[in-house]
Amino acid sequence: MISGLCRVRVRYSDTDGMAVAHHSRHVNWMEVGRVELMRSAGMSYAQLEREGVSLPLVALTLRYRSAARFDDLVEIETTLDSYTRVRVAFTYTLTRVEDQVVLATGRTEHAAVDRELHPVRLPDQLRDLFGADQAYPYSGDPC
Amino acid sequence: MISGLCRVRVRYSDTDGMAVAHHSRHVNWMEVGRVELMRSAGMSYAQLEREGVSLPLVALTLRYRSAARFDDLVEIETTLDSYTRVRVAFTYTLTRVEDQVVLATGRTEHAAVDRELHPVRLPDQLRDLFGADQAYPYSGDPC
Amino acid sequence: MISGLCRVRVRYSDTDGMAVAHHSRHVNWMEVGRVELMRSAGMSYAQLEREGVSLPLVALTLRYRSAARFDDLVEIETTLDSYTRVRVAFTYTLTRVEDQVVLATGRTEHAAVDRELHPVRLPDQLRDLFGADQAYPYSGDPC
Amino acid sequence: MISGLCRVRVRYSDTDGMAVAHHSRHVNWMEVGRVELMRSAGMSYAQLEREGVSLPLVALTLRYRSAARFDDLVEIETTLDSYTRVRVAFTYTLTRVEDQVVLATGRTEHAAVDRELHPVRLPDQLRDLFGADQAYPYSGDPC
Repeated sequence: MISGLCRVRVRYSDTDGMAVAHHSRHVNWMEVGRVELMRSAGMSYAQLEREGVSLPLVALTLRYRSAARFDDLVEIETTLDSYTRVRVAFTYTLTRVEDQVVLATGRTEHAAVDRELHPVRLPDQLRDLFGADQAYPYSGDPC
Repeated sequence: MISGLCRVRVRYSDTDGMAVAHHSRHVNWMEVGRVELMRSAGMSYAQLEREGVSLPLVALTLRYRSAARFDDLVEIETTLDSYTRVRVAFTYTLTRVEDQVVLATGRTEHAAVDRELHPVRLPDQLRDLFGADQAYPYSGDPC
Repeated sequence: MISGLCRVRVRYSDTDGMAVAHHSRHVNWMEVGRVELMRSAGMSYAQLEREGVSLPLVALTLRYRSAARFDDLVEIETTLDSYTRVRVAFTYTLTRVEDQVVLATGRTEHAAVDRELHPVRLPDQLRDLFGADQAYPYSGDPC
Repeated sequence: MISGLCRVRVRYSDTDGMAVAHHSRHVNWMEVGRVELMRSAGMSYAQLEREGVSLPLVALTLRYRSAARFDDLVEIETTLDSYTRVRVAFTYTLTRVEDQVVLATGRTEHAAVDRELHPVRLPDQLRDLFGADQAYPYSGDPC
């Protein structure tokens, strides 16, 4: 299986009235993580969409462990969990870089669809990339 | 158990590059639903926070069934699922008003905390309200 | 000129670490206001987009007067400011319903474009609707 | 005057139904830019808030020049525009890294306030940092 790392900073616009990152932001960070994993693996999500395939969510689970605060650096580890001809699932661990506290863990499940949102098969090239056994390091690029 | 209804419209800012509501918006709509349920039940979430108690998420699950599109009216049905002295869980069904298609179902689990995010007991008054058996109708007010 | 009213509630996800609505939300509320104005005038923005015309922003100005807080009801008054064959501008006043305090005023300027983001003329039908002299009341529907 | 650079990537959650970055995201990116400039200058915004001072927006202007698309790398140049004892203004230029196309330019004006949102003076230390004449390079860190 493949896995990858990227890092985001908690923005002020991510915080809520409790002065912590709002729980919906973790959903966006997991998206950032899988987009970066696909880029690392060799097929960016932008390229996949240009080929007419999108991967909307079918299911989402998140467990919140500790609050993220403004300006925290958050590392997102994304791991390919499983895939079939038409579906793919990822798991995520969000960790605060400073003290290595786990902020949240999650899982998303996706169906491959075309531009009209009809089910399609995952491109063979993508499934080949998914079949590798590789842990991609943090590129240092914004994500 | 108590349950309640409210309605939101899919805003343009909710849509993403697939021209459907981004999957993170359902998380915000579920929040809108439980805030409205608490208001209907007699203790608004704003009032709860003024008393020093917040209900951050511990866990979140979502199953996406059908895409919501710009301008769709979405009805959010929120149902109290269970509660203890220190935790509470809600379930949600999001339905497009026009054709009654279920867009998503979800569940959130919350811990009661004080302003320093330390665990506290749910106020007795809130647990009393939770103990009622009542289905609150849609108020017609913005939510 | 035409003008219209709609109402939104400040959601918890709209608040930031200062426990007030984040300044980017006013941008979304102005969008809600003009979408509602176009619906009231007789051509919804969804319909306009189905006909292949979008109205992306060219310019935005906002003056913040007073902070909006969680659960506040906000009334958005949107007024058509001016239009030409290819552009249109709106002004906005955001007011807290409870005490009629003005929260912010703003203005947006838009260019008509087709699906490839190339400039096009505003549909004649829309310009006819813009040419009316009408103040639309708050419909009571979610917006 | 001081100025600084940082870079963000257009996330999928930033896009809207036109498949471009929604116009409200530029507001968040400008916030990212000034937070990063303050960090570069020697007083992070998080530190400022810990000292009890916040800088909410009084005014915002944005001119949109070109659409940002999913996965674009965007460079944010933030420049201190002016400051008094109680106010500060910044200007921004958002540029796509790949082809150096200017996406938008903007300006924000801020008032210094305490935790109760009452006006206060800018800390002397901050005004000293603002008084420098320095162009800070892109740190390479997430922002």
